[in-house]
Amino acid sequence: MPAPIFPASMQDGPTVGELGEFEVIRVITEQASSSLNGDDAAVLRHATPNSRAVVATDMLVSGRHFRLDWSTPAEIGEKAILQNFADIEAMGARPVAALLAISAPTHTPVEFIRGLASGIGKRLGEYSAELVGGDVASGESLVISVTAIGALGGSLPELTLGRARPGQTLVAHGRIGYSAAGLALLEHFGRAGVPEHFKPLIDAHCSPRLTPGRGMVARAAGATAMTDNSDGLIVDLSHMAKKSGVRIDVDSAEIAPDSLLSLAGEELGCDPWEWILSGGEDHTLLSTTFGDAPSGFRVIGRVTKSRPDDLVTVDKKTPAYSAGWKSF
Amino acid sequence: MPAPIFPASMQDGPTVGELGEFEVIRVITEQASSSLNGDDAAVLRHATPNSRAVVATDMLVSGRHFRLDWSTPAEIGEKAILQNFADIEAMGARPVAALLAISAPTHTPVEFIRGLASGIGKRLGEYSAELVGGDVASGESLVISVTAIGALGGSLPELTLGRARPGQTLVAHGRIGYSAAGLALLEHFGRAGVPEHFKPLIDAHCSPRLTPGRGMVARAAGATAMTDNSDGLIVDLSHMAKKSGVRIDVDSAEIAPDSLLSLAGEELGCDPWEWILSGGEDHTLLSTTFGDAPSGFRVIGRVTKSRPDDLVTVDKKTPAYSAGWKSF
Repeated sequence: MPAPIFPASMQDGPTVGELGEFEVIRVITEQASSSLNGDDAAVLRHATPNSRAVVATDMLVSGRHFRLDWSTPAEIGEKAILQNFADIEAMGARPVAALLAISAPTHTPVEFIRGLASGIGKRLGEYSAELVGGDVASGESLVISVTAIGALGGSLPELTLGRARPGQTLVAHGRIGYSAAGLALLEHFGRAGVPEHFKPLIDAHCSPRLTPGRGMVARAAGATAMTDNSDGLIVDLSHMAKKSGVRIDVDSAEIAPDSLLSLAGEELGCDPWEWILSGGEDHTLLSTTFGDAPSGFRVIGRVTKSRPDDLVTVDKKTPAYSAGWKSF
Repeated sequence: MPAPIFPASMQDGPTVGELGEFEVIRVITEQASSSLNGDDAAVLRHATPNSRAVVATDMLVSGRHFRLDWSTPAEIGEKAILQNFADIEAMGARPVAALLAISAPTHTPVEFIRGLASGIGKRLGEYSAELVGGDVASGESLVISVTAIGALGGSLPELTLGRARPGQTLVAHGRIGYSAAGLALLEHFGRAGVPEHFKPLIDAHCSPRLTPGRGMVARAAGATAMTDNSDGLIVDLSHMAKKSGVRIDVDSAEIAPDSLLSLAGEELGCDPWEWILSGGEDHTLLSTTFGDAPSGFRVIGRVTKSRPDDLVTVDKKTPAYSAGWKSF
């Protein structure tokens, strides 16, 4: 993996090495400001009284989790927040704050940092959340680590992986397979070459979105288990099925490729079912409930008693694809 | 900065690339276990009711913040926790949990991860805190990001940088200058070559310690401002003086080099005052109070009205050294 190469359009401005730590922090907090920032640690006051704190972290490495020629700096920031906040939502909690730690080479253009922070600030704003602290360091690789903090109020339990029960329905909020299709298109065409009509797939990969609050809504409506589709649909549901001691059966008709996924599959000579079943990175919220599908969710399957063979089935059969993201 | 070179003694075992993500996570959680770990996000239950959450993060880059030939993996883990928990203590809060994100090359020996996690688990244990989540990713550099979560109970305000007031005394918990002296010895001798009698200086650099709870004690005893000596004594006190709109005067007699620092200075031909005034990384807690020095703290100076020239003085004069850590 080579050192990061920044787009030519950014090469004219100052670098982080030229500006130094405190100016770099100023650029970041200008784009994503919070009155809680600026001390040794941030004290979160906006959690509701008696709420529990919920925390998650993700580390993004340039060339591995994002590419500077595929994503704008703002998109990288947007995605870093979204994927962390999806983990908070997947507990049924409300995202309230984030911390940002960056390791960057000294030749990193300040324009990259500004764009990254603007994307972070934009996505945080959609959640009424704030960037409350962080760290900047020099290093050969460009590495971005975001920590999300959420608040879980009330007395209902959180939505863990281990609380799916036989007889429940499996519900989903968000698209499935779009992110992996977008990635395949970027690999084939490069960002500039992707035909315009595939934009929703590119957006799903470079700048995924969820409607803020769906996790809280599902918890209030009686959902018991939840996770997000980050590593791959079958992989993530398998974690839930294993932790819960159940089997999860997905209804193929409810997750079948739409016309856009089918078109991308034809264009690239790929089976769109691979994107759907093993793609990941959609950050779709996947939940189980005895009740009706909560607002914004649709039914895509059901929870049954465990079977010795498969943790997750599609139409009661072993899925055609079940691989997922590999960290190493 | 070259890719990390791991000690020869670790080369015989498996690498993280051979083991894969889930086994690597198992190795980590074996060394630093928590029942709160293992879901999309961790829900913290052990904060006291009505307490606020306090969060801080630090990113450590191999070759920049630590060296594999100077520190054992366990020491790197111990220091990563200590420096984050010092930030939590510096708000007057109680550290309760940590998140660990690691980016590591696929050739990283699993033995390194195990050692790192054992140091993390050991230091967390001293604080009755837990490792509640994290992320592992592959990347060219070895980068460790720790997020600390604390709980701040009761109605007293937190100890911010902006609450030092003229007439207060400046108090400190922990040594000052030891870490920088240790670093200078390592640069000169290498780890194996450092004379045995300098061990306290090496320990201060590679595995700094504070007595857990000093921040809470100071807050309860009436301290109002606090920070830790991470970037350099004068730099860190200057942040406090600036945010508070005051001047801070340090009494040279109270921070003067002891016999060990003087000996190291003679050995290396250095002025130990430079280590004391601009060294940083001691993570000494520096606080201001109108009352007596809280338990475990000693008086090292006083807060006076602001003056247009110096934010921080030593014996009312401009300090001989005032540089600090540079991130880029």
